[in-house]
Amino acid sequence: MAALTEQLEIIKRGCDELLVEAELVDKLKSGRPLRVKAGFDPTAPDLHIGHTVLINKLRQLQDLGHHVVFLIGDFTGMIGDPTGKNATRPPLTRDEVAANAKTYTAQVFKILDAGKTEIAFNSTWMDKFSSADMIKLAATHTVARMLERDDFGKRYKTNQPIAIHEFLYPLVQGYDSVALKADLELGGTDQKFNLLMGRELQKHYAQPPQCILTMPLLEGLDGVNKMSKSLANYVGITDSPNDMFGKLMSASDVLMWRYIELLSFAPLVTVRQWKKEVEEGRNPRDIKVGFAQEIVARFHSRAAADSALADFESRFKQGEIPADIAEVTVTAGADGIAIANLLKEAGLTASTSESLRMIAQGGVKLDGEKVSDKALKLAAGMQVVVQVGKRKFARVKLT
Amino acid sequence: MAALTEQLEIIKRGCDELLVEAELVDKLKSGRPLRVKAGFDPTAPDLHIGHTVLINKLRQLQDLGHHVVFLIGDFTGMIGDPTGKNATRPPLTRDEVAANAKTYTAQVFKILDAGKTEIAFNSTWMDKFSSADMIKLAATHTVARMLERDDFGKRYKTNQPIAIHEFLYPLVQGYDSVALKADLELGGTDQKFNLLMGRELQKHYAQPPQCILTMPLLEGLDGVNKMSKSLANYVGITDSPNDMFGKLMSASDVLMWRYIELLSFAPLVTVRQWKKEVEEGRNPRDIKVGFAQEIVARFHSRAAADSALADFESRFKQGEIPADIAEVTVTAGADGIAIANLLKEAGLTASTSESLRMIAQGGVKLDGEKVSDKALKLAAGMQVVVQVGKRKFARVKLT
Repeated sequence: MAALTEQLEIIKRGCDELLVEAELVDKLKSGRPLRVKAGFDPTAPDLHIGHTVLINKLRQLQDLGHHVVFLIGDFTGMIGDPTGKNATRPPLTRDEVAANAKTYTAQVFKILDAGKTEIAFNSTWMDKFSSADMIKLAATHTVARMLERDDFGKRYKTNQPIAIHEFLYPLVQGYDSVALKADLELGGTDQKFNLLMGRELQKHYAQPPQCILTMPLLEGLDGVNKMSKSLANYVGITDSPNDMFGKLMSASDVLMWRYIELLSFAPLVTVRQWKKEVEEGRNPRDIKVGFAQEIVARFHSRAAADSALADFESRFKQGEIPADIAEVTVTAGADGIAIANLLKEAGLTASTSESLRMIAQGGVKLDGEKVSDKALKLAAGMQVVVQVGKRKFARVKLT
Repeated sequence: MAALTEQLEIIKRGCDELLVEAELVDKLKSGRPLRVKAGFDPTAPDLHIGHTVLINKLRQLQDLGHHVVFLIGDFTGMIGDPTGKNATRPPLTRDEVAANAKTYTAQVFKILDAGKTEIAFNSTWMDKFSSADMIKLAATHTVARMLERDDFGKRYKTNQPIAIHEFLYPLVQGYDSVALKADLELGGTDQKFNLLMGRELQKHYAQPPQCILTMPLLEGLDGVNKMSKSLANYVGITDSPNDMFGKLMSASDVLMWRYIELLSFAPLVTVRQWKKEVEEGRNPRDIKVGFAQEIVARFHSRAAADSALADFESRFKQGEIPADIAEVTVTAGADGIAIANLLKEAGLTASTSESLRMIAQGGVKLDGEKVSDKALKLAAGMQVVVQVGKRKFARVKLT
């Protein structure tokens, strides 16, 4: 295994919070592979690179020799929404869970080492859990402790209903750590309360408590909002190589460093070297190209990455997009702006109905990519090259 | 079956609250025997007549032709106190539950018709309940609804811990009504919230909701405090015939009517006749004798009741207790007063140590009964004839 300080540096790279570092150091000192847990919903996933921040960390831990357990929370998924209020959360069947798990792993094994990953389902132990066991589990925590969780506390104070079973889910998630004898659990920043629940329950069940490592939510291409499909500021991991490459190239120079920290597997020493070079005058675009190629290669292939670069460069070189085009600033507001309005505001069309017509005819491009979704929204913070027809161009800055 | 109005009058006799009367009338009109549920803890019982108020009501319902289910809540009893904080509530084994149930029924079958009583254990269905079922059950109610229960609300507001499983117990108790398809559930006034839970869960599980009937807590012999072993104001159902008789005779004339309402099986028409006679000058002592005999006969035998009356009368007639003795008022306060202090305060001994010596020698009597418990406490509101040695007497009024 790598030296302790090196391991710690890799583990903490880009993380939001590590609790408790001293305990993790002790665990690492033991030299044995740590049991690393990360839990995922059993719903059919369609991942964007924001989701891979955590998966990347798991991969780094695998490379350090640790044992990764990819836990699928199918027990609660098979219950669905027991209040019946949420029609979009019907209970999943065992077959659906298995199918979703396959889709999931097909995606994450582009990052994780399949041979070194343990796939676990919490129904394995929760199906054997009796109602008496559930009562004993519920007895380990107080109502007041649960209401300390931000969302519960807020809902209680504003008289929004909290069904009692919602208090049981964090306990089940925490108990998973007991069942798995986890040494370390990873999760998003918003999962901190639930991750701590695992720590507390392990103590209750006389196990050494797991450490917890939270990873930040990745900013979208706008550099402001959380990456999200609904904001169209995302890079999907099933995006075509050209799309993926083009989108990553549109990231600002500041955002590029953030992405490199959280998404690139380039060693920290290399990243530091790049930063130094840019400070000394190297064009950050070179670094961005290398980074975008790394990501395309990860989800497609090295060859696809090379061809995406070639395609990207030819589009500029062949003058498809003029080098010098007008800059326009358009207000997108908190909810984003619809593409039809954006075209009008940017002065590229005379009306939203003309915008819609142009989109329908296939005459609208964003960063060289044809727009087909009339309902597409763009978020504040983004910067895109917009083209309408053959000759109308604008570099639009959304605020 | 008895006529509807007569049934209703018997069912409502002495009750605290009947919900919903119109629904109960509809159920009674159907003419079928109603399924009547009453739940009991599986801990070893040692009943006093206060506990029999509810059992008496069950007996009245049996006499009206309804089906009584005596439900023993062994499922939760076998879990014990899962927080481990309450050392006096260790989990019971299945054998202990069975033994306790036997002790219980041996006592309650002095009132209930054993041949017409169904004994049920909620472990029968709760042992088959999975953790997923428990989550679905928990989903039927909100945290806010639970905090409406007086004791939960008070504890939450004063920052006293409420373990989450405590929210599950009322749900389990309510689910018992679903499992039993109860038409009517009986309980103490303090159980109203839990009884309503049964109603709500039956609606959730598409059953007609049960009606609920709450019975008051019986006042002790002091006529003020709730009957309780710790206040020594109780009549135990295993008390000797002479004790039982003497204690009931010590009830005030006002308290006598309350006891007759809740404990006697004399028809209401007879009770009304007695009241009329007393108003017209009959000595209430005659009524009290008849009532005390009814109760002694219930828990012992008619012969025991007759001999208890004879014993009681001979003690007065043979001058064991002088007819004319001094009256003393002693302050007992909210916590009651220890017997040794009472003797001193009443001027019957010079000091508490003399009191304790006299008790040890068997020289102290309360209402003609020897006192053997040096720690005995008496409550405010009681009136007792106290005797120390052969000749010292006082009629002590406790305030």
